[in-house]
Amino acid sequence: MTADLPADLDALIQAVHPADQAAMGRARARQAQLTKPPGALGELEALSIRLAGVFGTERPHPRGVAVLVAAGDHGVAAQGVSAYPPEVTPAMVANFLADTPHGPGGAAVNALARSVGARVYVMDAGVNAELPVHPALHRAARRQGTRDLSREAAMTPQETAALVLAGAALARRAIEDGADLLVPGEMGIGNTTPAAALTARLLELDPQAVTGRGTGVDDERLAHKVAVIRTALARSDAADPLTVLAEFGGYEIAAMLGMMLQAAALRRAVVLDGFVEGSAALIGVALAPALRDFLFAAGQCAEAGHGAQLAHLGLKPLFSLGLRLGEGTGGVLAAPLLLGAAATLREMRTFEEAAVPAGA
Amino acid sequence: MTADLPADLDALIQAVHPADQAAMGRARARQAQLTKPPGALGELEALSIRLAGVFGTERPHPRGVAVLVAAGDHGVAAQGVSAYPPEVTPAMVANFLADTPHGPGGAAVNALARSVGARVYVMDAGVNAELPVHPALHRAARRQGTRDLSREAAMTPQETAALVLAGAALARRAIEDGADLLVPGEMGIGNTTPAAALTARLLELDPQAVTGRGTGVDDERLAHKVAVIRTALARSDAADPLTVLAEFGGYEIAAMLGMMLQAAALRRAVVLDGFVEGSAALIGVALAPALRDFLFAAGQCAEAGHGAQLAHLGLKPLFSLGLRLGEGTGGVLAAPLLLGAAATLREMRTFEEAAVPAGA
Repeated sequence: MTADLPADLDALIQAVHPADQAAMGRARARQAQLTKPPGALGELEALSIRLAGVFGTERPHPRGVAVLVAAGDHGVAAQGVSAYPPEVTPAMVANFLADTPHGPGGAAVNALARSVGARVYVMDAGVNAELPVHPALHRAARRQGTRDLSREAAMTPQETAALVLAGAALARRAIEDGADLLVPGEMGIGNTTPAAALTARLLELDPQAVTGRGTGVDDERLAHKVAVIRTALARSDAADPLTVLAEFGGYEIAAMLGMMLQAAALRRAVVLDGFVEGSAALIGVALAPALRDFLFAAGQCAEAGHGAQLAHLGLKPLFSLGLRLGEGTGGVLAAPLLLGAAATLREMRTFEEAAVPAGA
Repeated sequence: MTADLPADLDALIQAVHPADQAAMGRARARQAQLTKPPGALGELEALSIRLAGVFGTERPHPRGVAVLVAAGDHGVAAQGVSAYPPEVTPAMVANFLADTPHGPGGAAVNALARSVGARVYVMDAGVNAELPVHPALHRAARRQGTRDLSREAAMTPQETAALVLAGAALARRAIEDGADLLVPGEMGIGNTTPAAALTARLLELDPQAVTGRGTGVDDERLAHKVAVIRTALARSDAADPLTVLAEFGGYEIAAMLGMMLQAAALRRAVVLDGFVEGSAALIGVALAPALRDFLFAAGQCAEAGHGAQLAHLGLKPLFSLGLRLGEGTGGVLAAPLLLGAAATLREMRTFEEAAVPAGA
């Protein structure tokens, strides 16, 4: 598929350049002069330096936070890989958009986003239902749910490219609205199955090692889920990242890949939530290794395989709260930690500025 | 000292009552009905239930966040237990209050507080300097620094009670100003030495096990610090909590104890930052066991002994970012996680409200 990559998708991939090393060097020097013992801010110091690289300044000032929730369904759900029926996907999209006494949306991501002041964007990336028209629903669906990845390619190359570009378009929209930290999020019953298949293929790991309970399947259904993924992987020996995505992926995963590439191309930070987001990130760094510079891991999620993804991406999670919901919830919770890290670098005074005696 | 406890201090201790178990029961039932797989919000669910107990409602709505930074000096600093000279304490108080292009305060706690929308209160609890008059500096000092705990009682019983009550008064002020989450914070060169002495005595642990590098002492000075603490503990066999505090504690530790007791008495949540805060909390739960219900641990700090404190308090840290700065910085960073946890319980819809199909 790489050979006949659409020109705009190719351009998007080519637009991802490494973080600003010079700004990171200046940020590192500045951190060492701030009014605190060296290293006393722990991981926040390294985070702040990475943010300096993303934003190209030793005083990074990220402002808006946006969570972009892509929803899609999965043909493989018919194989009984999830604890929930596929009807949950459209019902949750309606929940993301619902009027409530607290504001728009009654799902976890809405409550958390309101709490931290993040804006929520919702995309129909391919839900298996006719969704009612809603002004806040971004429509990008090409088909109502993917094909069953255990039997055939989940998506066509054309669908894949279209969804990546739709994700990129939504990220541009969020950035135009003021977002500097972008949290790709997802909803899709069955989607830890494609995510595990993608992770197994890209990291060359056995499906057993990267397949978890998703929304909460029991031991028997977990064994079945692993078997379904084995069948899928045996069906195609695809290795090219976009072909792997088309064979085993999902519409919302393709959309999240587009969000990540676009955010990095426009030099914004991407906060990764959980395992499904991680599978999109693996495709992303395979296509554009510099994407890694723009990725920040939120929490260590409870899903098997997430640790392997983070190790491959070279990312250290900020917390370990046992989240396994998706929707971008972990990324939204992590955003204030990133904003705080940037604030220390930007707003703290140096020992010299504050006339504070230095240490022994 | 308990026998001749001042009436108002005794009243403060008596005013701490357990969290609302009925509200916690209703919150637990509500969490199980929210639109997410059971347990998918991980630790946030337990946090939200604890917050329901603090605020007495299954829809807790904590609003303002306040960080109350008490500064004090320590006679024991003359023994060379810190990597920094005591002159840093007044210089950092000036830094907390300084005019900067970003707003008041150029220290880490100021930058982080602005980032999360928290209000900063600064108290002179007993700094070893004549501090300039500043409208935002709350003056509670009885003496310019404690006595050397390795030679004599660090504080008199009268000073101890006065500082506890001053901390309580500042907490009341913050609560009147709208704070529902209170973060006690501290600044005081040498204060991990009294904190380690308090922790060793209250938890009956060897000083070696609870003494860390503070702002960053080397191996030699760490061994000396442990020896100083041993000398102090050998000097007095005090066991009564307030006597232990007077013998080994510090003015800012006494003030933080008062903040915690007052916040709990007024049924507000207390977010614990690090090791020095933890030592005040140990005194607090020894005096009023129900205080525990109102305490939330921010991060696991890098200081030795913090883990033992949290285990005794029955608290699980929310992150492990390697912070070891104090000032309340970790507590400020944790506040958005607590606000988010409350938001899920308060604002998410139930499966029934959202007409989302339940799981298999």
